[in-house]
Amino acid sequence: MRVGDRNYRTIWLADDGETVAVIDQTRLPHRFEHLALTSCEDAAKAIERMAVRGAPLIGATAAYGIALAMRSSPTESGLQQAYTRLLATRPTAVNLRWALEEMLGSLRDCPPEDRQSTAYARAAAIADEDVEINRAIGRHGLPLLQEIAARKNGAQVNVLTHCNAGWLATVDWGTATAPLYRAQGEGIALHVWVDETRPRNQGASLTAWELGQQGIPHSVIADNTGGHLMQHGLVDIVITGTDRTTRTGDVANKIGTYLKALAAKDNGVPFYVALPSPTIDFGLTDGVAEIPIEQRNPDEVAKITGETEAGTIETISVLPKGSAAVNYAFDVTPARLVTGFITEAGVAEASVEGLADLFPDRATTC
Amino acid sequence: MRVGDRNYRTIWLADDGETVAVIDQTRLPHRFEHLALTSCEDAAKAIERMAVRGAPLIGATAAYGIALAMRSSPTESGLQQAYTRLLATRPTAVNLRWALEEMLGSLRDCPPEDRQSTAYARAAAIADEDVEINRAIGRHGLPLLQEIAARKNGAQVNVLTHCNAGWLATVDWGTATAPLYRAQGEGIALHVWVDETRPRNQGASLTAWELGQQGIPHSVIADNTGGHLMQHGLVDIVITGTDRTTRTGDVANKIGTYLKALAAKDNGVPFYVALPSPTIDFGLTDGVAEIPIEQRNPDEVAKITGETEAGTIETISVLPKGSAAVNYAFDVTPARLVTGFITEAGVAEASVEGLADLFPDRATTC
Repeated sequence: MRVGDRNYRTIWLADDGETVAVIDQTRLPHRFEHLALTSCEDAAKAIERMAVRGAPLIGATAAYGIALAMRSSPTESGLQQAYTRLLATRPTAVNLRWALEEMLGSLRDCPPEDRQSTAYARAAAIADEDVEINRAIGRHGLPLLQEIAARKNGAQVNVLTHCNAGWLATVDWGTATAPLYRAQGEGIALHVWVDETRPRNQGASLTAWELGQQGIPHSVIADNTGGHLMQHGLVDIVITGTDRTTRTGDVANKIGTYLKALAAKDNGVPFYVALPSPTIDFGLTDGVAEIPIEQRNPDEVAKITGETEAGTIETISVLPKGSAAVNYAFDVTPARLVTGFITEAGVAEASVEGLADLFPDRATTC
Repeated sequence: MRVGDRNYRTIWLADDGETVAVIDQTRLPHRFEHLALTSCEDAAKAIERMAVRGAPLIGATAAYGIALAMRSSPTESGLQQAYTRLLATRPTAVNLRWALEEMLGSLRDCPPEDRQSTAYARAAAIADEDVEINRAIGRHGLPLLQEIAARKNGAQVNVLTHCNAGWLATVDWGTATAPLYRAQGEGIALHVWVDETRPRNQGASLTAWELGQQGIPHSVIADNTGGHLMQHGLVDIVITGTDRTTRTGDVANKIGTYLKALAAKDNGVPFYVALPSPTIDFGLTDGVAEIPIEQRNPDEVAKITGETEAGTIETISVLPKGSAAVNYAFDVTPARLVTGFITEAGVAEASVEGLADLFPDRATTC
């Protein structure tokens, strides 16, 4: 997507054909900088410290992490070590495991001398597949926005989104944003309410930034605001992403998603989740009980980073000395609150039947 | 309440007996500083820039603002000007109008030469009445916490609160915190989940600070977190304050309260609102339709102030250049989501009957 006057993906190969380049998302929105990953450990650290984040991009980065590992140790144990190291980086996203298993599957029967080239090819394919999945999500989500625009006689369609399920969370297009970018292309007038998304502010830092680069009108709001907007008819549709969705349609996503889903239900606002199928965990039935919720460093709540008037980047503490903070990264929205999923295969009901209907092969193998 | 090793109220007279002293709450939690108010305009500015905030403290400050005005212009027009200036400071809190009308009522038939002394006496009485109201809210709220403690066999009672309805929002004790301070006195083990309360962070800056000064265990959480905690049985009761409550029991309070109330309902967690009776607007029936919701400066969303590691206070921007923010300050929680009100006259159901039963005189005069 656009950054200034150029197009980017979030992950690409440097000119040497082996170094993996990513956008350092911890520096956005104030700085646009790249990181060069030259080892599996670099890739693991980039995921852990959230220089890259978003379930699909984590998957793609982990895939390239395996490829980087194959440069130096294309042995069985090298492969196993890389797998284990990368899998431990983040506990919630299922794409991570999915991408790593895809890589293992491609490399297991491959002679060590071919593993590097095979791994780079498979990682590139995973990245390309993600782009195609998101493009398809955009195509299937477009009619939802077209219908609202038609009902409103072309008046601005107000979309609320939480966190960043934009192109920065994927390789390109984004999941929740793909229908928006597509609708923009079709000339639909949009305005996006962007939840700030404390504690890491990915809405304010990333979603607002990418919508701004793309020229889509948007307003950042405190995470507390969505309910009030919905009570007053100021939200036509909610679209979020997901980090892991059960076969029954329960959605793990950034902490606070559940609260917005409750408000949408209470006000009759459609609540859609953009769902690339690698994010579905067909092995899980009860999201609240079964999906492990990552607890991150309390400093993410206690401290905030931003830019001073003088243009320097500063980190400030917002808690009294001696007060503790607790930092749950995700929550689970029960399927009963989800109007539907926008997937690469079409729009589905949030239910066993809805998902099995669109993905019969994956649903039955679990 | 305690600050270090001293007891304070939030508003008091300086040694000259006329200057009004308040805590500059915009400097908390990093600095504890007082402001001296010597004119009606000082009082109005202190309310507008939220050096003092919280519906009851706004009322007390406005009352003293009238007293300060009577020092220089105890005429009819001086009184009317002071009333108009102070009433315009904040649109949502009903205590402001209530306190100003109490002052007008006391001063209208009073000869100009007596107005200053009468006004100071009435303002002091309003402040003292607030202290007594909050003390009574503590007494009536205590059994709710005792019951939970008994049911948990003395294990820690987990309370969630939003924004600051603590002693800093009142003259002393607080509304939502009064039952907590009372329970602490009775030896009940408490732990408070403190919503950060973006955009102004009054939970993190004020509630965490005052609980810390009082020695009550607490954890600050992002505003997105309450639903997840409730899904996992980590919240026993929610207690919030209110800025204005209709005769039907709809509650205007800090933006985001509605979202927590929805989550409480969805998880069977009792949701109580601490409600001093001056906060009830018996003239209103439909909170969502009738209560004006203040929109404040978008900079409150776009910028955050805190303390750097070096100990300086800095303000940082957290938005991309060119992104807009929108800042609604309150929302309305419908009565159907409120388990009950803790008032100075007892615990009431959130309904016309519940409130009329406790406050029959006020209910029938409107």
